[in-house]
Amino acid sequence: MAGSQYGTIFRISTWGESHGKALGVVIDGCPAGLPLKEQDFEDYMGRRRPNAGKFSTKRNEPDQVQILSGTFEGRTTGTPISLIIWNQDQRSHDYADLADKYRPGHADFGFDAKYGFRDYRGGGRSSGRETVGRVAAGALASKILKELGISFDTRATAIGGHPFKEAEPYLDQCRAEGDSCGSEVNCLIHGVPAGIGDPVFDKLDARLGQAIFSIGAVKSLDIGDGSLVSQAKGSENNDAFGLKNGRIAPLTNHAGGILGGISTGADIRLHVYFKPTPSISLRQDTVTKDGKETKISIHGRHDPVIGPRAAVVVESMAAITILDAMMINMTARLSSIKDFYR
Amino acid sequence: MAGSQYGTIFRISTWGESHGKALGVVIDGCPAGLPLKEQDFEDYMGRRRPNAGKFSTKRNEPDQVQILSGTFEGRTTGTPISLIIWNQDQRSHDYADLADKYRPGHADFGFDAKYGFRDYRGGGRSSGRETVGRVAAGALASKILKELGISFDTRATAIGGHPFKEAEPYLDQCRAEGDSCGSEVNCLIHGVPAGIGDPVFDKLDARLGQAIFSIGAVKSLDIGDGSLVSQAKGSENNDAFGLKNGRIAPLTNHAGGILGGISTGADIRLHVYFKPTPSISLRQDTVTKDGKETKISIHGRHDPVIGPRAAVVVESMAAITILDAMMINMTARLSSIKDFYR
Amino acid sequence: MAGSQYGTIFRISTWGESHGKALGVVIDGCPAGLPLKEQDFEDYMGRRRPNAGKFSTKRNEPDQVQILSGTFEGRTTGTPISLIIWNQDQRSHDYADLADKYRPGHADFGFDAKYGFRDYRGGGRSSGRETVGRVAAGALASKILKELGISFDTRATAIGGHPFKEAEPYLDQCRAEGDSCGSEVNCLIHGVPAGIGDPVFDKLDARLGQAIFSIGAVKSLDIGDGSLVSQAKGSENNDAFGLKNGRIAPLTNHAGGILGGISTGADIRLHVYFKPTPSISLRQDTVTKDGKETKISIHGRHDPVIGPRAAVVVESMAAITILDAMMINMTARLSSIKDFYR
Amino acid sequence: MAGSQYGTIFRISTWGESHGKALGVVIDGCPAGLPLKEQDFEDYMGRRRPNAGKFSTKRNEPDQVQILSGTFEGRTTGTPISLIIWNQDQRSHDYADLADKYRPGHADFGFDAKYGFRDYRGGGRSSGRETVGRVAAGALASKILKELGISFDTRATAIGGHPFKEAEPYLDQCRAEGDSCGSEVNCLIHGVPAGIGDPVFDKLDARLGQAIFSIGAVKSLDIGDGSLVSQAKGSENNDAFGLKNGRIAPLTNHAGGILGGISTGADIRLHVYFKPTPSISLRQDTVTKDGKETKISIHGRHDPVIGPRAAVVVESMAAITILDAMMINMTARLSSIKDFYR
Repeated sequence: MAGSQYGTIFRISTWGESHGKALGVVIDGCPAGLPLKEQDFEDYMGRRRPNAGKFSTKRNEPDQVQILSGTFEGRTTGTPISLIIWNQDQRSHDYADLADKYRPGHADFGFDAKYGFRDYRGGGRSSGRETVGRVAAGALASKILKELGISFDTRATAIGGHPFKEAEPYLDQCRAEGDSCGSEVNCLIHGVPAGIGDPVFDKLDARLGQAIFSIGAVKSLDIGDGSLVSQAKGSENNDAFGLKNGRIAPLTNHAGGILGGISTGADIRLHVYFKPTPSISLRQDTVTKDGKETKISIHGRHDPVIGPRAAVVVESMAAITILDAMMINMTARLSSIKDFYR
Repeated sequence: MAGSQYGTIFRISTWGESHGKALGVVIDGCPAGLPLKEQDFEDYMGRRRPNAGKFSTKRNEPDQVQILSGTFEGRTTGTPISLIIWNQDQRSHDYADLADKYRPGHADFGFDAKYGFRDYRGGGRSSGRETVGRVAAGALASKILKELGISFDTRATAIGGHPFKEAEPYLDQCRAEGDSCGSEVNCLIHGVPAGIGDPVFDKLDARLGQAIFSIGAVKSLDIGDGSLVSQAKGSENNDAFGLKNGRIAPLTNHAGGILGGISTGADIRLHVYFKPTPSISLRQDTVTKDGKETKISIHGRHDPVIGPRAAVVVESMAAITILDAMMINMTARLSSIKDFYR
Repeated sequence: MAGSQYGTIFRISTWGESHGKALGVVIDGCPAGLPLKEQDFEDYMGRRRPNAGKFSTKRNEPDQVQILSGTFEGRTTGTPISLIIWNQDQRSHDYADLADKYRPGHADFGFDAKYGFRDYRGGGRSSGRETVGRVAAGALASKILKELGISFDTRATAIGGHPFKEAEPYLDQCRAEGDSCGSEVNCLIHGVPAGIGDPVFDKLDARLGQAIFSIGAVKSLDIGDGSLVSQAKGSENNDAFGLKNGRIAPLTNHAGGILGGISTGADIRLHVYFKPTPSISLRQDTVTKDGKETKISIHGRHDPVIGPRAAVVVESMAAITILDAMMINMTARLSSIKDFYR
Repeated sequence: MAGSQYGTIFRISTWGESHGKALGVVIDGCPAGLPLKEQDFEDYMGRRRPNAGKFSTKRNEPDQVQILSGTFEGRTTGTPISLIIWNQDQRSHDYADLADKYRPGHADFGFDAKYGFRDYRGGGRSSGRETVGRVAAGALASKILKELGISFDTRATAIGGHPFKEAEPYLDQCRAEGDSCGSEVNCLIHGVPAGIGDPVFDKLDARLGQAIFSIGAVKSLDIGDGSLVSQAKGSENNDAFGLKNGRIAPLTNHAGGILGGISTGADIRLHVYFKPTPSISLRQDTVTKDGKETKISIHGRHDPVIGPRAAVVVESMAAITILDAMMINMTARLSSIKDFYR
């Protein structure tokens, strides 16, 4: 497989390019019996959608999710759920003059090195628009997790190093300069029971590591206290175990809810660092496909900052990862298998 | 699978517990024709091994790798390579009194929640000793990568926030206090050609994300400039493209050699943050399996810091990941397939 | 994953139900650079389509394949290729009265046992119509294989034990009786080079075994001489090696082109046995969902025999399997990897 | 992966060559809590072992299975179970003069075409001895299935077309002539509940197809009535549903317990056809590696017939396949997931 599939039991396959006919996702392994209608995707798709505010692009598509398969009489059947989002607003002429130049900070050069050529319209497959499929699948995973008592609190917390709520003047300045800026997203996951995740390569944090770094523009991930642990002592960083409401639990949560790759029942805490939007209108040095030095200025509809819209992508990837791990976990004990087949 | 397998084409399966009879790894998908002898593992295993210095545990086993299958007349045959490392120094009595108490910072509680019980001797499968299989496989991957012109420079760079070379007094103090401390490891990978990694979920950074976070005690990973990108502007963070020795290349390397999940040909830069060793002799609060509050002091042979010995584990996981991605990449173009079968 | 994905590198995900909005397939891992247009699917889809003749159903849809992603300027880009076939002729009222009865020979009972309920319209996901996605992917795989010098000769060879060309009176009788009959399909694959397939579980015949038995109604598969080998002596069954056009080759082909799971360069020969169409208008005993004994007569548009239209499904699954094995095979030797990255 | 791994959740990795130091298997995904000791493998290993009788080779090794990991205090822990079988009787000098000649009916030529060279001692990885790892894993799977109420009846039923019990004179003649003969194995699986297997590519019969055809020398597989269905009418072949002991069940079993890829609760019936042992002492035509025509006579310790010892290999592969499918099936319904995590 060439990288557009994710998950073991709850397994998604996304497809589509920025300026193609449509984008979508096929979800294999969704359990049967979940009530599902097209409106169930609206909240997540809305959070991903550019709003009228200062933080996002002017490209404004409804991004309505259409269910093509896998439900019957309003419930999932256990067969693959195919979701499609049609592209409506394709101004590929915006990009035509960029066909031969490698945009700094973008995958253009890598795609050409790998495949020999590329769909240069709006970044093609490596566009941020690729995430619509993830978010659609994430909405579904999240709906299931909600039935299992698991909830998310995911939000952009900083822009260019400024607390999110105070960042507007800084962002205005970036925009005025034709520049862009980095951002941070925090994701808090509440209600994951203890015991989720597998030792060694499929540790819950390892799977989350793949999931989060698979989102374009992510350059760093902290779990729990993150990079700060490297400056802590063991006596400070260890979370003592005790009793909470009569149940064994860590009394602090430096670990961010995961020890040895397995959830402890405490909140899972992820902190994600996004690079600045690479598309800027400031002139930059670059080369053409043929290796001639040139300049490039990228105009078009681009968010100057990625985090605010990407928060729901982080949440989606986390939801897919945790649901999959919870499904795999059901087979960990012989006694559970015997109970199921009794 | 329950998490002890990693890779798509070059695929490893590790097994073994800290105090079991042996540990090992089976490597499926290793190409045929590589000269391989047991001494080829010595360098990597030696880097993982505790040395006589101040930074590591007193448990000192030779950790000789024995080749059980997959070679003939000194070369790999393309069939699975089974490597075994026998445990020689098993003092399980050290751990017997910890059977009922959950060690803070360890996976004990998670294992019990998941499986109902656990091998409590020295951490069992979640011991740092689990990494011998990874390092043996990493030595093999690295040997192949060397033939492809790829080299690594991986080292511990900081201990408890102090530069590695100045950390000794701080470490002495930790040890004297019965405490431990965090650390940082930097991994620089030179020579990976442009075009490696797949878009979307198998981005090279996503695969590295899984690989690195699958190492016990890792709580944060930076790729390239890492978390700093969140405070940068696009004009600062973008790497302009230009010509180096007549070839197209990024002229700076904030991205750490990966854009859109695909290598650019520049050095790949990883920075890994390890938490302090959770086993400390200082008294800590915890509970027993049955939920009674108690105290715990962990004695035995433990490194007070993880990074120095874990550097080769980071390098191993990176090597396995990159080799696998390079093998997958060979099928990306129809013209390559036609050339191969001409 | 719940079974709707197939392949390792060239990997397909199919979706859709008989009476849903559409069916389709997402192909991940298709190499870049293949000229591809929607007409390329017509031949295969046409072979799957019911013709005006006596052998097939009266349901007659054009089954035009629409390409939604993965191509640019007429060539594949290496990113996922999403293909969709819209359902146009959905007479679900034909099936409404069968909602509560388990059709003999069908998966209805199994689906209910597994999922708790099912899409009963026309068999839902277990309808023969599910194969449109496979055939679309097969057309693509076959087009690539043709560029590699590999060709197929696949045809129905027998109907109800009668040679295909003489079967018409027998078939007329079945139809008149409201009955159906079994059939056989032969698939000859020419031009697969020696060395394809992997030892042990991914033997080329093992992968073909999964591929062919994954087609509904298949109950037996012969490779080469098939079941006859059980009555042969070694001296009869072994294919002597000799020289053909100066190249080493088996001089006979009892083995059907595969030895020890690896291709020999001789023609690969598959012979597939299909059960009779289970939907018949003759009255049959069955039970309702609630366990009441009842009778059932199945009317509607059903082929009385499966093989003639399924031949292209067999060819498609064989093509997908062989292409995938050929892609995996490119990494079998270190020298090939070194050549590629030189 | 290069083909030595099998299964999705219950996943095995086998390794080892006929004349290497040892062979073995690593089982990832075995549920925790199963009592397991080394004697548990004896029955299966004994059935695979050559006995003193007329039907098998004179190579007679105890093939004792040693458990290297994954158990603690006599029970499985959920971590990988590494099993090893040491080779004791390695007479590689028997094979030295065959290094340059391609044995008819063997994989020698294919291995050289694929890998460039091979371990020619006793067939190396493609030896029948490779199956010890499968049988060890099969013993474990079977022990779990027994706890779930599932049992097997697997036996050789025919030799050279003669009923097994009357085949001795025929076999004596083959042996006297320096020849070998084909055989048949029947496998009956009792107690698999309805609902096991996934639609489309992971149909239970598709997975069994891969599993059985992955066994060396298998050239044909029947499920249920097998190839006979191609001559049956629908009214004959369909199994009417009715009530058995108050439960819905097929009243006959032409289908062999599987409809649409999903188990019906009826006995699963497999019939497997093995080719004659390719190693015969009769002189055969062949060529050398360098393409020179020559003759070959293969002496050494070879069974003249494969089925009798391979029956337990068939049973092992079926057991691994069914257990894996049953584990996957536990996640098919949302209500089951909710029950588990309540």
